[in-house]
Amino acid sequence: MNAATDIPSLCRAARAASRELARVSVAQLNSALEQIAQALEANKAEIVAANAKDLATAKSKGLTGAMLQRLELNDKVYQQMVDGVRQIIALPCPLGEILFDRTRPNGLEIQKIRVPIGVIGIIYESRPNVTVDAAALCLKAGNAVVLRGGSEAIHSNLALATALQKGLAAAGLPAASVQLIATTDRDAITTLCQQSDTVDLLIPRGGYGLIKTVTENARMPVIKHFNGICHFYVHPKANFDMAEKIILNAKCQKPGVCNALEALLVDATIAETFLPRIVATLQKNGVEIRGDATVQKLGGAAVKLATEADWGTEYLDLILSVKVVANLTEAVAHMDKYGSHHSDGIITDDDAAAADFFRMMDSAALFWNASTRFNDGFEFGFGAEIGISTDKIHARGPMGLEELTSYKYLVRGNGQVRA
Amino acid sequence: MNAATDIPSLCRAARAASRELARVSVAQLNSALEQIAQALEANKAEIVAANAKDLATAKSKGLTGAMLQRLELNDKVYQQMVDGVRQIIALPCPLGEILFDRTRPNGLEIQKIRVPIGVIGIIYESRPNVTVDAAALCLKAGNAVVLRGGSEAIHSNLALATALQKGLAAAGLPAASVQLIATTDRDAITTLCQQSDTVDLLIPRGGYGLIKTVTENARMPVIKHFNGICHFYVHPKANFDMAEKIILNAKCQKPGVCNALEALLVDATIAETFLPRIVATLQKNGVEIRGDATVQKLGGAAVKLATEADWGTEYLDLILSVKVVANLTEAVAHMDKYGSHHSDGIITDDDAAAADFFRMMDSAALFWNASTRFNDGFEFGFGAEIGISTDKIHARGPMGLEELTSYKYLVRGNGQVRA
Repeated sequence: MNAATDIPSLCRAARAASRELARVSVAQLNSALEQIAQALEANKAEIVAANAKDLATAKSKGLTGAMLQRLELNDKVYQQMVDGVRQIIALPCPLGEILFDRTRPNGLEIQKIRVPIGVIGIIYESRPNVTVDAAALCLKAGNAVVLRGGSEAIHSNLALATALQKGLAAAGLPAASVQLIATTDRDAITTLCQQSDTVDLLIPRGGYGLIKTVTENARMPVIKHFNGICHFYVHPKANFDMAEKIILNAKCQKPGVCNALEALLVDATIAETFLPRIVATLQKNGVEIRGDATVQKLGGAAVKLATEADWGTEYLDLILSVKVVANLTEAVAHMDKYGSHHSDGIITDDDAAAADFFRMMDSAALFWNASTRFNDGFEFGFGAEIGISTDKIHARGPMGLEELTSYKYLVRGNGQVRA
Repeated sequence: MNAATDIPSLCRAARAASRELARVSVAQLNSALEQIAQALEANKAEIVAANAKDLATAKSKGLTGAMLQRLELNDKVYQQMVDGVRQIIALPCPLGEILFDRTRPNGLEIQKIRVPIGVIGIIYESRPNVTVDAAALCLKAGNAVVLRGGSEAIHSNLALATALQKGLAAAGLPAASVQLIATTDRDAITTLCQQSDTVDLLIPRGGYGLIKTVTENARMPVIKHFNGICHFYVHPKANFDMAEKIILNAKCQKPGVCNALEALLVDATIAETFLPRIVATLQKNGVEIRGDATVQKLGGAAVKLATEADWGTEYLDLILSVKVVANLTEAVAHMDKYGSHHSDGIITDDDAAAADFFRMMDSAALFWNASTRFNDGFEFGFGAEIGISTDKIHARGPMGLEELTSYKYLVRGNGQVRA
């Protein structure tokens, strides 16, 4: 089943499975997730062997340390993956939630209730544990899922999908509720983009090339999980110690993720006092600084001159662009022009300035005196997330179980007709 | 300004305007809507003259009565259009609403608040009053709007857009908040579909050709307002008088709209008793019946034999397809296969059957003993609507002010960093 490469028929099977899933109880969905956790435990040897194959291929192709690390299902990652499924079981199921309930003057009772979306296609790169995380979240919200992982993880993903399907079958739910596109052919993505009759939503998680292919070809709704060009603006009334702590955390704690800091804007009023200090601290922590002329002047010889391209770059590395701005308005204009409206922040002790920033700037999450690294479903208290949406339609920012649902209206009458 | 045919620059101007709109107060948005209502009153003569030009062209092209009627801005329609703007002023503004507010264990305060989407593109056909309705709704929710109406209404739409822009300017808001694409060239739609850098959402309202063009070409999110292939299933325990009243209303009260009935499914148990009666009543009201073999046998000589194509057809006319089904499960399977999941209903006095129908069927709105014609924003008590979404992402069913918003997270800290 999971070896299917005929994408239209694979999506049709997922569609049929989604009709069944939409009608089962929450207890059945949870029981299927428990069977999946057990199947992952029972089939660990085969899955790890498949992963070893992918790792060997990756090494032979000269993949670097970080890339190899992302690909590896070692004991710790494997256990986290299984634990993750059980954490999803423990989350409250959003299905059936009554979002709205009212009786109209003519006696009609109107309820709005949460239902599954249907079939969700997810396109992602490298890390094979995403196969399990994404499938478990979609299933918990009553959705079937069509997965397309990175070609370098193909053997791992096939073995994982087999275990997922075994778990579903053991729970008496259709194995086709989880479908993995088994071909590593890049045309598979454009073919998947055509399946609007059977796939309700596509979620591409990745870089520019993938996002471009999907937005140009998809005929169904798409929610992009794209880049985070995140900024901090340091206001004249900032507490410098706090600013330093937050900026260091946002840039250095995990530089390869979408909510890490990529650009720092310092108010001109405090440039002479704050800039030499923050530049030195960042450099001591291994961060390369690319600044404008003022930053170069105040920050010392190791500061590189930023090019126009730097302002719009998501480095995902220990590099930071730094610029002096005249005021809050200029800071917001810069973020607006060069940022990706993912996570942006202000550091200030001035309540009015923070309120202005919250009003003027439009990003998925805005931070006042806290690290952008908190833009995350777990940190927001939502539980597991499928990713962080960089779109404004349906889901913005952390996308968890609720965002994997739609709704329908139920209207109860006693013979009402329209005049 | 409104004569612009350079679509990319027109969308860029709307984007710039949207940044300003997102920062103004609700009072300013309402004052702009009042200025728009006054501008429509002050410029009525010019607008009606422009409409006369469109009507003359339409007549010379041999347009039929119903089409001409949709195009005409007579005194009654004109007044309704102006009143509609003032009704939108009276609606509560969703912007700034706090959707969620919590403090995390680490002290972070997280709020989720409603914000405008940004720039919304709306593509619609024939009726020129949509130009005003759609613009007023988008503006009330803080959005700029790019409008593309039908070519047969081009002079009316240009004159209306001029009045809208005068109203905006009089209120001190950017005139570019409302942009009308002035060319009737069909390539304009595909060009608009490319403007993903400046347009956040496209809403196509129309038939198959328009929806196909937009879904194949759009690179930004799309919410379709497409067809309604609406069904009723008459259950063995239906009250026949009620069934007759509801079916007549759903089919005949306004046959040209998306929530009108297009297909009737009658349970085999009651075919002999109910079918002759409902067929006769419908025929007496001018409805052509296209039935399966049983319906032909029981319904009399005037029943035409339905083809496979009939089951999936949105007639928008006094025609109804009628089929006998074995039970509720078969009824749901038929609706699922041939319907558009817009508005579907059951007529029964059996609570358990209705509950099964509500659980098994997935449509934007499901009706139990009430006419499908109630699937409408006003009837649901939401106030004005931009249309009825046939998608499941972001908005499903009636799409009003709330559905014209997005949200952002505001995170307040006192130096929190991520461990």
